[in-house]
Amino acid sequence: MESESKWESVLGTRYCRGSPLLYILSEKNKTLVWRQLWIWLAEAEKELGLTQVTEDAINEMKAAKEMIDWNELRAEERKLKHDVMAHNHVYGRMCPSAAGIIHLGATSCYVQDNADCIVIREAVQYLLKRMALVLSRLGDFAERTKSEVTVGRTHYQAASLTTIGKRTCIWIQDLLIAFKELERFMEEQRFRGIKGATGTQDSFMTLFEDDEERVEALDDLVTEKAGFKKRFAISGQTYTRQQDVLLVNSLATFAAAAKKMCMDIRVLQAMGELLEPFEESQIGSSAMPYKRNPMKSERVCSLARQLLTLPQMALNTMAEQGLERTLDDSAGRRMMIAEGLLNTNAILLIIQNISEGLSVRSGVVAKNVREEMPFLALEKALMYLCQEGVDRQKAHATIRSTALDAKEKGDVDLEEMFSAPFYDTVRLRVLDLASSPLHFTGRCVSQTERFLSHELRPTISAYLENNDEKVELEV
Amino acid sequence: MESESKWESVLGTRYCRGSPLLYILSEKNKTLVWRQLWIWLAEAEKELGLTQVTEDAINEMKAAKEMIDWNELRAEERKLKHDVMAHNHVYGRMCPSAAGIIHLGATSCYVQDNADCIVIREAVQYLLKRMALVLSRLGDFAERTKSEVTVGRTHYQAASLTTIGKRTCIWIQDLLIAFKELERFMEEQRFRGIKGATGTQDSFMTLFEDDEERVEALDDLVTEKAGFKKRFAISGQTYTRQQDVLLVNSLATFAAAAKKMCMDIRVLQAMGELLEPFEESQIGSSAMPYKRNPMKSERVCSLARQLLTLPQMALNTMAEQGLERTLDDSAGRRMMIAEGLLNTNAILLIIQNISEGLSVRSGVVAKNVREEMPFLALEKALMYLCQEGVDRQKAHATIRSTALDAKEKGDVDLEEMFSAPFYDTVRLRVLDLASSPLHFTGRCVSQTERFLSHELRPTISAYLENNDEKVELEV
Amino acid sequence: MESESKWESVLGTRYCRGSPLLYILSEKNKTLVWRQLWIWLAEAEKELGLTQVTEDAINEMKAAKEMIDWNELRAEERKLKHDVMAHNHVYGRMCPSAAGIIHLGATSCYVQDNADCIVIREAVQYLLKRMALVLSRLGDFAERTKSEVTVGRTHYQAASLTTIGKRTCIWIQDLLIAFKELERFMEEQRFRGIKGATGTQDSFMTLFEDDEERVEALDDLVTEKAGFKKRFAISGQTYTRQQDVLLVNSLATFAAAAKKMCMDIRVLQAMGELLEPFEESQIGSSAMPYKRNPMKSERVCSLARQLLTLPQMALNTMAEQGLERTLDDSAGRRMMIAEGLLNTNAILLIIQNISEGLSVRSGVVAKNVREEMPFLALEKALMYLCQEGVDRQKAHATIRSTALDAKEKGDVDLEEMFSAPFYDTVRLRVLDLASSPLHFTGRCVSQTERFLSHELRPTISAYLENNDEKVELEV
Amino acid sequence: MESESKWESVLGTRYCRGSPLLYILSEKNKTLVWRQLWIWLAEAEKELGLTQVTEDAINEMKAAKEMIDWNELRAEERKLKHDVMAHNHVYGRMCPSAAGIIHLGATSCYVQDNADCIVIREAVQYLLKRMALVLSRLGDFAERTKSEVTVGRTHYQAASLTTIGKRTCIWIQDLLIAFKELERFMEEQRFRGIKGATGTQDSFMTLFEDDEERVEALDDLVTEKAGFKKRFAISGQTYTRQQDVLLVNSLATFAAAAKKMCMDIRVLQAMGELLEPFEESQIGSSAMPYKRNPMKSERVCSLARQLLTLPQMALNTMAEQGLERTLDDSAGRRMMIAEGLLNTNAILLIIQNISEGLSVRSGVVAKNVREEMPFLALEKALMYLCQEGVDRQKAHATIRSTALDAKEKGDVDLEEMFSAPFYDTVRLRVLDLASSPLHFTGRCVSQTERFLSHELRPTISAYLENNDEKVELEV
Repeated sequence: MESESKWESVLGTRYCRGSPLLYILSEKNKTLVWRQLWIWLAEAEKELGLTQVTEDAINEMKAAKEMIDWNELRAEERKLKHDVMAHNHVYGRMCPSAAGIIHLGATSCYVQDNADCIVIREAVQYLLKRMALVLSRLGDFAERTKSEVTVGRTHYQAASLTTIGKRTCIWIQDLLIAFKELERFMEEQRFRGIKGATGTQDSFMTLFEDDEERVEALDDLVTEKAGFKKRFAISGQTYTRQQDVLLVNSLATFAAAAKKMCMDIRVLQAMGELLEPFEESQIGSSAMPYKRNPMKSERVCSLARQLLTLPQMALNTMAEQGLERTLDDSAGRRMMIAEGLLNTNAILLIIQNISEGLSVRSGVVAKNVREEMPFLALEKALMYLCQEGVDRQKAHATIRSTALDAKEKGDVDLEEMFSAPFYDTVRLRVLDLASSPLHFTGRCVSQTERFLSHELRPTISAYLENNDEKVELEV
Repeated sequence: MESESKWESVLGTRYCRGSPLLYILSEKNKTLVWRQLWIWLAEAEKELGLTQVTEDAINEMKAAKEMIDWNELRAEERKLKHDVMAHNHVYGRMCPSAAGIIHLGATSCYVQDNADCIVIREAVQYLLKRMALVLSRLGDFAERTKSEVTVGRTHYQAASLTTIGKRTCIWIQDLLIAFKELERFMEEQRFRGIKGATGTQDSFMTLFEDDEERVEALDDLVTEKAGFKKRFAISGQTYTRQQDVLLVNSLATFAAAAKKMCMDIRVLQAMGELLEPFEESQIGSSAMPYKRNPMKSERVCSLARQLLTLPQMALNTMAEQGLERTLDDSAGRRMMIAEGLLNTNAILLIIQNISEGLSVRSGVVAKNVREEMPFLALEKALMYLCQEGVDRQKAHATIRSTALDAKEKGDVDLEEMFSAPFYDTVRLRVLDLASSPLHFTGRCVSQTERFLSHELRPTISAYLENNDEKVELEV
Repeated sequence: MESESKWESVLGTRYCRGSPLLYILSEKNKTLVWRQLWIWLAEAEKELGLTQVTEDAINEMKAAKEMIDWNELRAEERKLKHDVMAHNHVYGRMCPSAAGIIHLGATSCYVQDNADCIVIREAVQYLLKRMALVLSRLGDFAERTKSEVTVGRTHYQAASLTTIGKRTCIWIQDLLIAFKELERFMEEQRFRGIKGATGTQDSFMTLFEDDEERVEALDDLVTEKAGFKKRFAISGQTYTRQQDVLLVNSLATFAAAAKKMCMDIRVLQAMGELLEPFEESQIGSSAMPYKRNPMKSERVCSLARQLLTLPQMALNTMAEQGLERTLDDSAGRRMMIAEGLLNTNAILLIIQNISEGLSVRSGVVAKNVREEMPFLALEKALMYLCQEGVDRQKAHATIRSTALDAKEKGDVDLEEMFSAPFYDTVRLRVLDLASSPLHFTGRCVSQTERFLSHELRPTISAYLENNDEKVELEV
Repeated sequence: MESESKWESVLGTRYCRGSPLLYILSEKNKTLVWRQLWIWLAEAEKELGLTQVTEDAINEMKAAKEMIDWNELRAEERKLKHDVMAHNHVYGRMCPSAAGIIHLGATSCYVQDNADCIVIREAVQYLLKRMALVLSRLGDFAERTKSEVTVGRTHYQAASLTTIGKRTCIWIQDLLIAFKELERFMEEQRFRGIKGATGTQDSFMTLFEDDEERVEALDDLVTEKAGFKKRFAISGQTYTRQQDVLLVNSLATFAAAAKKMCMDIRVLQAMGELLEPFEESQIGSSAMPYKRNPMKSERVCSLARQLLTLPQMALNTMAEQGLERTLDDSAGRRMMIAEGLLNTNAILLIIQNISEGLSVRSGVVAKNVREEMPFLALEKALMYLCQEGVDRQKAHATIRSTALDAKEKGDVDLEEMFSAPFYDTVRLRVLDLASSPLHFTGRCVSQTERFLSHELRPTISAYLENNDEKVELEV
């Protein structure tokens, strides 16, 4: 059947097209990791003295590792209705010397759960690099625009001036918090290790004739072979699904930051101040071909919304796990973990593209600043008046009335606004200042510089590779 | 690249394998529905007097409808980054007489949103039939077990007796509520119709030279051709996403009912009273091959958990739609609607299989009833004592003490339990009754019969086809 | 302790201050409903022939119904750790003739669950009236503004013209869908009735000596006394929590509609086109006293966000109910149901206030229309050119280029824009039309009129009382 | 109006009765923290050379700090509809010398957001102590039961043996993960500091005549006075709501762990193996007075379910914050943060009570172990056979068949089970082992000991106070 004749997830066909994650999360990679785990187990068992595990067996396993006959596997799965046993049987048929010792002492979760740990780590490492790149690009944009004055907005209403770079730092800081959460997940992630059916390591105690030290050593050795620094001290049949909660929470935290940034861009594009990149031949809409719709930012918001629901799944999966393990985690985790990682990847691709092509419509930005200047000058006047000893509440009331009058009239003349005698003591200072918008932006420039150099760059530098490649988006 | 080398959603590859929904939700079906919508639009425009739409154009469109060149389509999409325009161009190249009038007066949402309405309706109709079948099977099970006495459980603790059939009716009633919600969705579902870019039908007013009646007629005519009874009176660019909320809420309501039923089955299987069907060659666990794990019910709980999160997506998508339309609905809807429908399908397949093979372990059930009988007899005694005029609070206290003593002792003898003089007036009635468990089940039999005949059967009968096919589950 | 020294929910102290719901959901009302349920039960049991229930007992119960000694109740609850038994004991002490027959044959859920049904119904009836009032006010606003032309916006970008009244109908239609959901909940809401400990009515069969007809009649009679048309045929210990799901889904659907409307208002206020009402002495911000922040609409969005999470609680509560009942519904339902109803009330108060004072800044609206006119004229030109037989794709491309040139230049002259020979055949029609914005709004006026008269007014009329009272908001 | 006549949140009246959190989260504490923040600001401004801030002003502020006239405050709030300004005015009237300098240079968020930081920190510190206490109690229980053998359960079905203490460590480990998340939140929590209306510190630059160093110093100084080690480098008007996400995620992670533990206890109580504490005079149910319902564990599950929904609110609040700040965070945060902290407190009280009174029904536990022993012996046989060189797949198949035969027959005799010649080589070892259940529990004892001493105790020790007080629960 042609692939167009059946539903496929848009995450695979559309939003992550070409991403390495599609392979990392594939059946093939899972199969190879399972086999690798069986090899590590056999090696470690042999190293710790189990004579039934022979050099030949291990060599056969290594030699056959990459050979996968999918038809045979599928047939065996249909027969056994148990995927680990099916893989075990098929692999065993390829390695006759190993057939009796593949999976020796282990339960399904040895391969399933440890493979999940490995696959998740691979994916998270990839995502951290991409995230660092996005943060770096946004840092460059903030650097370039750190002195470009713009109207700050609270309640979506004009407020004190800020700079575009400073505002970008708000976005970066939020993304950076998510980056650090995900980085910490990776650093703290624990391997399930060698724990047996209900986590007691009983089958391994039998194998090693009640020698606790060798069982503990086996757990350490496989953990080390798999490249993990930490493993769980305690487990049921699986590693605790709290670890999934921590992963998904990190991803959702990222999604929240990305969605906030992109909603801001959408609003700023509506106000004419920013333009997300627009591909040459892109058509705005079928009826209004000249429209510049912020479709990329909208898509991020849309994708993020799904990611934001995943903590519910992760938390409820954790909360509903029964005793040493119930299987009601399985199907949901297959969806939640893969889709969470892919969706994060999809968003990263888009926001990299946005950060690489985001353009400021400086004319509009400056015009909006000019229109707000009289009101901002009033705010300065409030400060100056207080400095001059005028009661703050009284100044506040007078200024409010001046401002509302001006708003009513519509067309505002700066000098006229301050013509009342009440402003005598501060008029000159105010009018002088009003000629230089950057003076209204407080410490924006230095805050931006300091944040980029002291917080952003040091945090991401280890993850940045020499990467000049730009993301092009196919819609 | 072989399909195992890249991630695919398990909903497609595993849980809905072979389902017609995979086609209904496919690119191909979408493409055909879009073309059909263009044909209906052209027909209706012609019927209402637009002379630029010719018979030839319509005939060409019909002739070319099924011919899809995916490579050309993909190339055009990459070029235009606008899928509707790409489809329009490609279709137009195949129908030269129609090239100028395909999509005449319409915006993208004419095909996108109306196609969504059609595809969703097709899928919902399919799901309703499957749901009716499951309900019918469960009704048969309830009928068969309506007199099989079992220990009722509140707080998971033994409580008054009930029958297995009566308990099954609790499951059925919950599922039936969901069925009626989904049925009502289908009956009330509205077509978007012919509304134009911001819902004002302005382009159609231009086309029809301000003749409101013909524009209204056009909207009616296309709605009718598409087989819908209702259409929205008001729309922005899209139909209101409240309609998606209603759909997803229905599906989540179903998921909640299915999850409750399957968690009950899991607990009852833990108590040894019920067994979900177990395939011949199925392997329980790799280490404990004789285990009968309720893996199907567990999978339902797992799948359902995802479905339960979807209302968050639907509600937030609705809540965040801006003004006449923002595109932040798009990517999320692609996932949410398709996955919601597929996940429902997946659950239905499993619970049909369960309902077809659910077996009662009558020995265990009866043993558990016997063990609870002394305590249930005490409860009867409470009622009888009240009938005899003993103060309820006093009776309550005495009985509590008798019961706790018995619980303490462990082994309970029925006659001994009622040997105290306090029970003189009711002893005979109680002991007599205790010999017949069904007498402790109140109206279970008649409630079951009445519910099946008066509520279940009439509600689902219209959806039942002659279907004896059983579901076999792979994996 | 003064009330300021301990936390209280802001729903009670701030957002629903003065609302009748606070009483409906109070301990006192619950207590009175419980007692009323005991009276109805006693009456019905007596009417159906239970001689142990005497006229005197019933009279005593009625006489004592309103007398509540909270200290005694609290003490009894602390002693028994079982609230229904505590209420039963206390009520029994006040009615010595009734002490033995209060609650006769019933379990706790007889009063708890049926009281929930009654309290929810009262609250929903109240909310429906308030909702109808809000819809009516919004209908008035739509009527007033049905011909006021404004720039339609898709992707928050200027699109075809619409009218303010037409846009308001989008909001109304969404709210109306929620209204109908809630109305349907009320109409379909079922009473739990008389079902006994695990829903088998066994205790009542004992009381009525296995006379099924009288037990059925008892169920009907109490349902009727409580004013319900429908009751559940099947129950466990409680009514199925699916009914709570349906309630909460309705409220969340309302929240989504309210949030969408208020986010639109916030964006339109940012664009200067709309102003939500602003109280005389309200202070915009402490630093910028002249700001007009859409704080009311913002608050609606904030409150709605909580309501949008409630379906998760309701669905999971339903999904996790075990067998004939588990108590893990209790604490959560106490929060979810009360807070869901109160939050809905809070939002309704605010959006009523908004709908009563929403003002259009017509100058800004008209200015924005003028600025978009050249581009809208281009869209018309596209239609006309197609009518003239120009190929749609070619026209589309040319118009796109004209539009992008104009956007680039910034200042757009309408006549100059159409000076190219390509527009010769349509220039006059376009320029003529461009002088009358309402001509660009298609069927906005008639759509609005028809929707208000055919859909809105008939749906809400039964719920509208003579109510001219305006909502004033504190805080 | 008596308090029973209006709704109050059960979190305050019932589940957190008497908790210090009710004060920490009260209006009064908020008011005092605001005033303290104004004092710190004035002190710091004075220390850094602002001469308009006088010693007298500061002294007046300190003297008046504790004097709160709630009626005056409420009246002012009603008048101004702006709570910070109202508090400012009222405080100013009490401190005439300070009236002009209270809040000097600041915006509302200086007090609101920084007070939130302080209140949250206080609450989190309190919760961490309570959590440590619960963990300690559970650790004691694990220590006591580390060698008590019990049937491990996967899929809720009997699996390999484990010990009760080992299983308890699963619960502890999950709770400990949540504890560490919350501890990390506290350690990383940042103060908003002195940032001004849109985060630019512009008003402070004006106050300090563009002296950046003094403005930076002011930010540091107030942060230090407030007892925080870190502050945000970048902010909009408020601190980023990512920080709230991190808080709420921690609490939800705790809720998931608590719910898992309590659901386990409920299932184990259903199986008769564990009993949560039951108060002397507690009544099980009105109809079945002898029932031992796990009502406390059920309540934890119910409360936890609400906590599990809060990340949705926190994440969406973060995601929807617009530009330098929108006010749609406000109402929701008032509910989400307070209720999240209180709900956590409520759960902690219950699980402390449970952990202090949890009792093992050793007879039932041992009986269940005995019944599973034959099957566990089979599992051992599988290992031994493999050690003897029998092919694993073959052994697996034979053992499965032996087990299924035994399950079918019902009554299992251990010796008979192993009578087939196939078991000759391992029979003696198996039968010998089967006489000692603890030998089937692998490393349970040492895992438990090591986990408690190496992971649990070191993590919580700093939070443990000398606390022997037991929690008594009022229902």
